[in-house]
Amino acid sequence: MKKNISTFIGCDNEYEESSIAIWGAPFDATTSFRPGTRFASAAIRRESYGIETYSPYLDMDLEDAFIFDCGDLELPFGNVKKALKMIEDHTTHLLDDGKIPGMIGGEHLVTLGAFRAVLQKYPDTHVIQFDAHCDLRNDYLGEPLSHATVIRRIHDLTGDGRIYQFGIRSGERSEFQFGKQHTFLNKYDFTGLREVIKQLDNHPVYFTLDLDVLDPSIFPGTGTPEAGGVSFNQLNGTLALLRPLNIVGFDINELSPPYDQSGISTAAACKVLRELLLIVNQEEI
Amino acid sequence: MKKNISTFIGCDNEYEESSIAIWGAPFDATTSFRPGTRFASAAIRRESYGIETYSPYLDMDLEDAFIFDCGDLELPFGNVKKALKMIEDHTTHLLDDGKIPGMIGGEHLVTLGAFRAVLQKYPDTHVIQFDAHCDLRNDYLGEPLSHATVIRRIHDLTGDGRIYQFGIRSGERSEFQFGKQHTFLNKYDFTGLREVIKQLDNHPVYFTLDLDVLDPSIFPGTGTPEAGGVSFNQLNGTLALLRPLNIVGFDINELSPPYDQSGISTAAACKVLRELLLIVNQEEI
Amino acid sequence: MKKNISTFIGCDNEYEESSIAIWGAPFDATTSFRPGTRFASAAIRRESYGIETYSPYLDMDLEDAFIFDCGDLELPFGNVKKALKMIEDHTTHLLDDGKIPGMIGGEHLVTLGAFRAVLQKYPDTHVIQFDAHCDLRNDYLGEPLSHATVIRRIHDLTGDGRIYQFGIRSGERSEFQFGKQHTFLNKYDFTGLREVIKQLDNHPVYFTLDLDVLDPSIFPGTGTPEAGGVSFNQLNGTLALLRPLNIVGFDINELSPPYDQSGISTAAACKVLRELLLIVNQEEI
Amino acid sequence: MKKNISTFIGCDNEYEESSIAIWGAPFDATTSFRPGTRFASAAIRRESYGIETYSPYLDMDLEDAFIFDCGDLELPFGNVKKALKMIEDHTTHLLDDGKIPGMIGGEHLVTLGAFRAVLQKYPDTHVIQFDAHCDLRNDYLGEPLSHATVIRRIHDLTGDGRIYQFGIRSGERSEFQFGKQHTFLNKYDFTGLREVIKQLDNHPVYFTLDLDVLDPSIFPGTGTPEAGGVSFNQLNGTLALLRPLNIVGFDINELSPPYDQSGISTAAACKVLRELLLIVNQEEI
Amino acid sequence: MKKNISTFIGCDNEYEESSIAIWGAPFDATTSFRPGTRFASAAIRRESYGIETYSPYLDMDLEDAFIFDCGDLELPFGNVKKALKMIEDHTTHLLDDGKIPGMIGGEHLVTLGAFRAVLQKYPDTHVIQFDAHCDLRNDYLGEPLSHATVIRRIHDLTGDGRIYQFGIRSGERSEFQFGKQHTFLNKYDFTGLREVIKQLDNHPVYFTLDLDVLDPSIFPGTGTPEAGGVSFNQLNGTLALLRPLNIVGFDINELSPPYDQSGISTAAACKVLRELLLIVNQEEI
Amino acid sequence: MKKNISTFIGCDNEYEESSIAIWGAPFDATTSFRPGTRFASAAIRRESYGIETYSPYLDMDLEDAFIFDCGDLELPFGNVKKALKMIEDHTTHLLDDGKIPGMIGGEHLVTLGAFRAVLQKYPDTHVIQFDAHCDLRNDYLGEPLSHATVIRRIHDLTGDGRIYQFGIRSGERSEFQFGKQHTFLNKYDFTGLREVIKQLDNHPVYFTLDLDVLDPSIFPGTGTPEAGGVSFNQLNGTLALLRPLNIVGFDINELSPPYDQSGISTAAACKVLRELLLIVNQEEI
Repeated sequence: MKKNISTFIGCDNEYEESSIAIWGAPFDATTSFRPGTRFASAAIRRESYGIETYSPYLDMDLEDAFIFDCGDLELPFGNVKKALKMIEDHTTHLLDDGKIPGMIGGEHLVTLGAFRAVLQKYPDTHVIQFDAHCDLRNDYLGEPLSHATVIRRIHDLTGDGRIYQFGIRSGERSEFQFGKQHTFLNKYDFTGLREVIKQLDNHPVYFTLDLDVLDPSIFPGTGTPEAGGVSFNQLNGTLALLRPLNIVGFDINELSPPYDQSGISTAAACKVLRELLLIVNQEEI
Repeated sequence: MKKNISTFIGCDNEYEESSIAIWGAPFDATTSFRPGTRFASAAIRRESYGIETYSPYLDMDLEDAFIFDCGDLELPFGNVKKALKMIEDHTTHLLDDGKIPGMIGGEHLVTLGAFRAVLQKYPDTHVIQFDAHCDLRNDYLGEPLSHATVIRRIHDLTGDGRIYQFGIRSGERSEFQFGKQHTFLNKYDFTGLREVIKQLDNHPVYFTLDLDVLDPSIFPGTGTPEAGGVSFNQLNGTLALLRPLNIVGFDINELSPPYDQSGISTAAACKVLRELLLIVNQEEI
Repeated sequence: MKKNISTFIGCDNEYEESSIAIWGAPFDATTSFRPGTRFASAAIRRESYGIETYSPYLDMDLEDAFIFDCGDLELPFGNVKKALKMIEDHTTHLLDDGKIPGMIGGEHLVTLGAFRAVLQKYPDTHVIQFDAHCDLRNDYLGEPLSHATVIRRIHDLTGDGRIYQFGIRSGERSEFQFGKQHTFLNKYDFTGLREVIKQLDNHPVYFTLDLDVLDPSIFPGTGTPEAGGVSFNQLNGTLALLRPLNIVGFDINELSPPYDQSGISTAAACKVLRELLLIVNQEEI
Repeated sequence: MKKNISTFIGCDNEYEESSIAIWGAPFDATTSFRPGTRFASAAIRRESYGIETYSPYLDMDLEDAFIFDCGDLELPFGNVKKALKMIEDHTTHLLDDGKIPGMIGGEHLVTLGAFRAVLQKYPDTHVIQFDAHCDLRNDYLGEPLSHATVIRRIHDLTGDGRIYQFGIRSGERSEFQFGKQHTFLNKYDFTGLREVIKQLDNHPVYFTLDLDVLDPSIFPGTGTPEAGGVSFNQLNGTLALLRPLNIVGFDINELSPPYDQSGISTAAACKVLRELLLIVNQEEI
Repeated sequence: MKKNISTFIGCDNEYEESSIAIWGAPFDATTSFRPGTRFASAAIRRESYGIETYSPYLDMDLEDAFIFDCGDLELPFGNVKKALKMIEDHTTHLLDDGKIPGMIGGEHLVTLGAFRAVLQKYPDTHVIQFDAHCDLRNDYLGEPLSHATVIRRIHDLTGDGRIYQFGIRSGERSEFQFGKQHTFLNKYDFTGLREVIKQLDNHPVYFTLDLDVLDPSIFPGTGTPEAGGVSFNQLNGTLALLRPLNIVGFDINELSPPYDQSGISTAAACKVLRELLLIVNQEEI
Repeated sequence: MKKNISTFIGCDNEYEESSIAIWGAPFDATTSFRPGTRFASAAIRRESYGIETYSPYLDMDLEDAFIFDCGDLELPFGNVKKALKMIEDHTTHLLDDGKIPGMIGGEHLVTLGAFRAVLQKYPDTHVIQFDAHCDLRNDYLGEPLSHATVIRRIHDLTGDGRIYQFGIRSGERSEFQFGKQHTFLNKYDFTGLREVIKQLDNHPVYFTLDLDVLDPSIFPGTGTPEAGGVSFNQLNGTLALLRPLNIVGFDINELSPPYDQSGISTAAACKVLRELLLIVNQEEI
């Protein structure tokens, strides 16, 4: 009798044959407001059976792609550095095996772990971030490692000119000032993205999608809901634009299922992940 | 002392004087994902007192219309065929009495019962469906009668060319392919509806409104929330277009109140039903 | 050791140095549908720490303004007249001290108390109301003082031509008729507001914002959710237009936190209040 | 076609043939903490179909009793005196028709209205109260009419020696002192009730059951949950003791459905009401 | 890389080495009141990681037992007979392989499928049922197969004298009368169980545990909450008494996670299942 | 105008005159299952106005005691060591000022910070723990500092014979074995406590109350609900026994408000805290 395998819908391929490997990073220890993103990856797998594998938007089907779902890492709450190291090591392992790594957070800080591994393999990696928040603080209550500092930490590694932020509508004044000088910070929506995509050409790209870029009306289940975000259709249409990019790693993060009894946030996250997997997938399908 | 009558707001006329008769079909036995639509009709009646009988959109008032609310059918859970037969018989009874039948689901499968009665009386009936899902599978886990197959079953009765689908954004690839060949399947929104309305002229029309055509942001309380739907104002403006049609039967379905603690889904359903009743109503008011 | 002070974010100035004073009016005794607005002011203070003091929309920061948060009035439930009198007296006290009074309701009826005090000081005050509902009934179940009659009571005081209503999408037929004759009633959105702003010139203005003008998708936590409202960005952009006005008093009302488990309504209310405070603030910042 | 009648389960008799008449008093305007009892009577009717008409405890069946359900009074929120007068008048009407009046609150203050009518007909009426709270304040924030003063107001009418309080576990020190002098106040449970029942002999008794006498574990849905209450079985066993009494009026109150998503409070209230109706019923069944 | 296996805590053995096999039967199509038991097995697996494998009550550890978790059957909603047949076939398969079958419902009707398989192998099987409800109706709204008729259907197969019911506190009068004549029906609690256990000696026993035998205070998440049940400690202490029995099959059922936001029902179900597995396990551990 | 002070009910004294000082430690970064205890102290203050200052159990009133509420510490999420150090320093500060420190967690790990300060001042401190869980692991996923290891870390400081555990009903086998050898571990309830109280005589005692010792029926809002706990009345009666002890520090912890929509957990915590404050208070009142 077979064991009870749990995966994101349509991601039931064998590891060896897969070109993309996804996994969950259930970690929210630095979340300052409302925790719960630790439950995101399990909820996304479970609720993914409410959507279809076929995308009418892209006319592509996950059944035709080769994706492996590794399940969740078991991360130590209360030890931020070790958790990030475990994420980095896992990502490195997947990269060594030739997979495109795709992570389901967790709070946004988990991106740092995955990104370090990707940058190790692709030193020229550029970052595209969709997010409601700048995440550019230098520290949060004195701590350098936080969901509110993650892009600043990534900037420590990349330096100026390699981070592209879209949808930003919240932050301290100093974060916006930092963004003006050191990143390509675009407020509110995706204006300017087409130009960026052209510029990036074939550079390796890490794509990090903080789902709170969506308006809280369609994505209430998140730690820090910030009114005035983009609609699902805006996000979805924009994701399709990313297809020409050379995405070498990606993540979605900041879904917090306990704050959405209706489940529409998880349902939206599932659909976003399906579209993203179809877009990143480099095989002909 | 009078008994405690419970109706949808403004639908407290006598049966004999009414031109429209509405009722609830609390049935969700084939729901595959999240059940609860059985509670919809009771919730809609109860919460309807949070809206007004007057529509500023149409400048019409339910107080001026003649509508009877029959209450709910008592349907056997676990016996799909019998439940559909009971719905069919009830609808036939109303049609025989010269009423326009209007049903509050329940899951979408209940439409099949009401439609069979309508088709019996008006063999040339055409179908307009607003929905997020195709509902065109031939079977679901081997079962021919399911919320996911209901339009396919209706197509069995009507044949090609008489089903018009709008707002569709989810289904298996094969369902979209079937739609392309056998129905007028319109993705995402209501484009093309004006043309259809012209064509339909005075043909009898059955209008089935799966409320999940609305975006989950305004309609979270449904079995299978599917991001990327239409806004309330889009739907509401489109309903007004239907007024010239010869609607001989209609239903709204797939509200699942337990999945919306805030009650906005039920409130939206109440407002949609008010508008729909005012539009279907053939009396001068 | 300092006492535990609880304020809206960034409103921790001393009373004497402040130009604006805000307070909560936790009162919902006439609410006919779903009570709970009594909890709004406490929730708004608490959840305000999930947003920032800096507005990227206005490029202004609450840290640069001088605002005092008085906490909540302790109002007697079940004695409507006394509660309104207490609100009026409190407002008068603030006006006497040269503050611009800003109230956090509570149900919409609380506006009457604050407005009476403002009108006493500025007899020429005009009223701008953003709301889903007319609130123009003459009585509600025989009661003249109700959330559904509040603007009618204000009209009793101002007479014709000084009330400007926007976003209205619900009411009895007779309310809309009254509005047509006696107020500037604008349905659905903010069309016509720019013109009104010009006309008002330097007249004193009381601004009352019933947050249910927002669509229930972004603002589910309210007593009477009414589908078809404006988006957050529509409201936010419109608020910015008010900056030239001579606002001598204002309130936000009808947030009912118990009906929004996700907290997005409270988060939206916090952001609206931040923007409004920055706009009303007359200091150069 | 019959209209859609909504009653408590098994209470579908004709008014004329009934010996008991029940109704809802959806009023919670003086509730100081968490409102919502206005929704109790509708919820109790609706959820009563989850229990049976037969009581295995009493081996009696509601199907054999003659009870009429009048539905709900439409009470003006925000006018406490008028609401109480309407309740009083309704109760008088039922008493005049020879019915035993049974009210479903609402907040506890509604008892005052019904009791005044009963006292008018039966001047010697004694009161048995099951409650977590004394309800003996002289005023609440200056108001004499409040859920926290209701038994004090009843004492104003009866004087000493005719009020029997059981299960009390919360109040101000002065309330307990008042109870010691003027009522038979029994803390925590039902000790002493058997003796009281004997003493009351055939005196007319008004029984008021504040359901928060139950422990919050089984009755979480109430305005002011107070830990340390009695279990359902304790309450149920105690209710059976009341059968010999000459109960001339009764009520249950303080169920607040919005605070119990699980519905167990409403389910418990339904069962309590069934048992109480069977006990009060004087017919041989 | 290993696949992501999902099991109940401590039940991660290989099939071949296991003496007990558990599985989920996510089916609730005949549920008449509040559906949702279809989500029970997944919730129990997921939340089982909140308890320990070690029982301080029994001083035994699941780590020492050999149990296989088959995952969930994929059952067709809306086809009761086929679903029961699939459950029967699955149970037969496990019995053929020498496993003790343990099912996680689903509504109580699923018991019929598993029981039929067990009875086929062990014709002398006796049934012990813990339940709040009789489940002895002959039909429910005309349907013979229902959660409310399941024990009656089992009685059709066993005849008199082989069914032992405990904890029963709800049913129609006729059900209690049937129980008096045809089953050993024990009201309210577990009185008489010790005697039954002695009598049963080494007879094969099927144990069916409807978790609503627990009081709704500790088990709110169920379709038909019925106040007055047993405490967790009462149930747990009673389960330990079953250890001498020759249990050849068992199930737990009627957990409905959507009706318990707090999750205590699922947590209780997990603990009950752990204890039950340790008790049924025949290995020396 | 006075600032808006927020305290636990009745704890509004000046710091200098107070003998007890309470504060919140909103920290849950090591919580492995369901986070949310960070919200406990704010919820307890807010909801405390639903109870009274007077205890009928003790016939004492908080109004007569002198207690200062310091508000909440601002602790860095994601830096466990620093958070514990901040708690320790705060506690030391209070001890230096002659106050009895009383902390509102947070997760149970916060106890370690407060205890280290107390132990510094009173080297002979003994510990009484009420808890559902042993909390005696040596590490949790490799981390020595965790809610699951906190009593083990305290044992590192005290050695054998000074820790008294009551109510324990969950843990790994090895934890129970450790308890048997190194602590006074009492399973399930408070048996043996009277004897311990006698033995402790006038030794300084730190009392740590993990509220999950209560049954989940009355305390659902906690990270790891564990069925089979004590009732509120059992706990409350036991707290009264502690009055003779020389309590030099105390805390309550593990309330997680987001997991209890009904609020009964917070209400129970408020009542427990009131009783505990009255018991610890050494003044004659």
